[in-house]
Amino acid sequence: MARVYNFSAGPAVLPEPVLQAAADEMLDYQGSGMSVCEMSHRSSTFQSIIDDAEAGIRGLMGIPDNYKVLFLQGGDALIFSTVFINLAPNKKADYIITGNWANKAYQEAQILGDPKVLASSKDQNFSYIPDCSNLDVRDDASFVYICQNNTIYGTKFHQLPNTKGHELVADQSSMFLSEPVDVTKFGCIHAGVQKNVGPAGVQVVIVREDLIPEDLPGVPTMLRFKTQADKGSLYDTPNCFGIYMCGKVFKWIESQGGLAGMKARNEEKAALLYDYLDTSDLFHSTVRPDSRSLMNVPFVTGDKDLDAEFVAEAAKNGLVSLKGHRTVGGMRASIYNAMPLAGVQKLVAFMKDFELAHKA
Amino acid sequence: MARVYNFSAGPAVLPEPVLQAAADEMLDYQGSGMSVCEMSHRSSTFQSIIDDAEAGIRGLMGIPDNYKVLFLQGGDALIFSTVFINLAPNKKADYIITGNWANKAYQEAQILGDPKVLASSKDQNFSYIPDCSNLDVRDDASFVYICQNNTIYGTKFHQLPNTKGHELVADQSSMFLSEPVDVTKFGCIHAGVQKNVGPAGVQVVIVREDLIPEDLPGVPTMLRFKTQADKGSLYDTPNCFGIYMCGKVFKWIESQGGLAGMKARNEEKAALLYDYLDTSDLFHSTVRPDSRSLMNVPFVTGDKDLDAEFVAEAAKNGLVSLKGHRTVGGMRASIYNAMPLAGVQKLVAFMKDFELAHKA
Repeated sequence: MARVYNFSAGPAVLPEPVLQAAADEMLDYQGSGMSVCEMSHRSSTFQSIIDDAEAGIRGLMGIPDNYKVLFLQGGDALIFSTVFINLAPNKKADYIITGNWANKAYQEAQILGDPKVLASSKDQNFSYIPDCSNLDVRDDASFVYICQNNTIYGTKFHQLPNTKGHELVADQSSMFLSEPVDVTKFGCIHAGVQKNVGPAGVQVVIVREDLIPEDLPGVPTMLRFKTQADKGSLYDTPNCFGIYMCGKVFKWIESQGGLAGMKARNEEKAALLYDYLDTSDLFHSTVRPDSRSLMNVPFVTGDKDLDAEFVAEAAKNGLVSLKGHRTVGGMRASIYNAMPLAGVQKLVAFMKDFELAHKA
Repeated sequence: MARVYNFSAGPAVLPEPVLQAAADEMLDYQGSGMSVCEMSHRSSTFQSIIDDAEAGIRGLMGIPDNYKVLFLQGGDALIFSTVFINLAPNKKADYIITGNWANKAYQEAQILGDPKVLASSKDQNFSYIPDCSNLDVRDDASFVYICQNNTIYGTKFHQLPNTKGHELVADQSSMFLSEPVDVTKFGCIHAGVQKNVGPAGVQVVIVREDLIPEDLPGVPTMLRFKTQADKGSLYDTPNCFGIYMCGKVFKWIESQGGLAGMKARNEEKAALLYDYLDTSDLFHSTVRPDSRSLMNVPFVTGDKDLDAEFVAEAAKNGLVSLKGHRTVGGMRASIYNAMPLAGVQKLVAFMKDFELAHKA
């Protein structure tokens, strides 16, 4: 078996020890004689798995007791609607548009109610985070919404917006558990796990209890946060294997020093790549320095054919999924928690060789 | 490793060769150097996986070209709403209540519109399928809804209802791919895969194209069948691992003789168990003979303590998850596609020994 360095933006690289344990347990989970994939979600064994997962993430993030942790199904597009339905009872919420996903969240809100755009960085192809120190938040806005790390454009909010006393709701998908977070600054955090935490198919929602509405007339049962909050995410059959894998990743993160340890690792990896990008004559970052993500690093040569050649040559050298999103072009290296330093070192070394070869 | 015989109602037993292949490929899918859990859903490799899965189920069920196959996320509770929203544009549909899940589907429709109960077997704790030969279907009902096999109560529609020209919509979750089906008799079939086809977290929807609404004002994007029908189930990140596992199960079913082969196996297993139940002095089926499921077989001794003793003793002998649902009591053996004949033989032999020991 030859593992590659996988720079995919998501689904993305997972820790090898987690995958190895999943393989080892696939036919027999800890002496149960069955796979987690075959196990009743009502069994005490699975209850322990989901309890451990919840305890794991609560420990890592220091989630206060007055926040619920939900393990839902569905990708990002569904949760955009669910968040608006549950957290904007007056159907008003204000959005900061920093890319494709924030915009999709805004568009779902448009289907359901009356959202407002507070700020946008569309004017420069979302290559920066707009100034959010003095936003014109509507008095009756139920929340201010951000996509805190923008996978496609490689930007991240280094400072949270001034919401002027309104609740802050954040999509943290592509930065989830990559660094410490003060949960109390948010009314709700949601994250698809397929970027930093597990296989696709689980959406983690961390929501302050007092924001969960008691009743939502006319709303399907599964779109109400209360349904799963009351049932410990087991109202009906959840994505059991996904939750089991997330729990393993939470333990792996803990073993690596928790979120502080992750942050240190991630800063080291990102610095290696950005430092090179900022000195290279061939490769350039597309993102304003004050807005750069620790997780997703887009870069270009400025020559489409050369970009394509780079991506193809890199793949031949075991550095895969480096093609950039079509809206940015060029390359993108997603260097999530599970990407080892050695992967980034190899990437930078390869980039240097490529630059040298194309200077001549 | 000692595998048990797992009679869980769902999530449930999967074919061992499928689990073995998943274990073998967990760190390296077919030379890609990565797990399916780590792979971009936009990659050509994953596109082949989902294309193969769709081709697999189309081949097994003989799904006509004018039906779409969708691989959605979410458990049964969400799809009840989605079906009503998409297939009842006038918010009217008629339901046959044969158990807990049919009733939940009806309750979701009550949240969203104006459903009617056409027939029910609640009067005898859902132990039979009501006569559906002459139902009072409303002229303007958009569809007639059934749960075709009732996991909890162990019943199955042996004849489809006379819908009087209206579309038939069926939840086939606990009988999915257990026998040949004439898809053309249905406007829509949906099935959570976690009983007969794969790990929890995928909902397969087979829906005739002309029933998919073009526009649904005010409805979230992900609740519109058209969204995923137009995007080949890849509008956003799907449950990639779940779809991959379903594809493997589809191939396994094909290798076992397809749905005709499954039916023959399943009839042999069920006959072994029902024949014994009908002659035993200790154990009794709770289901009227004309309504019995091939998949879920509830049975009782009539003595709660003895039931509990049986379940405990059986587990010690590697026959697990036999406890019945609380609304029926006693025991339930779910004998899905992947339960080998040897498992049912061992169960019946154990029941005979237990009966003999308790006769003395």
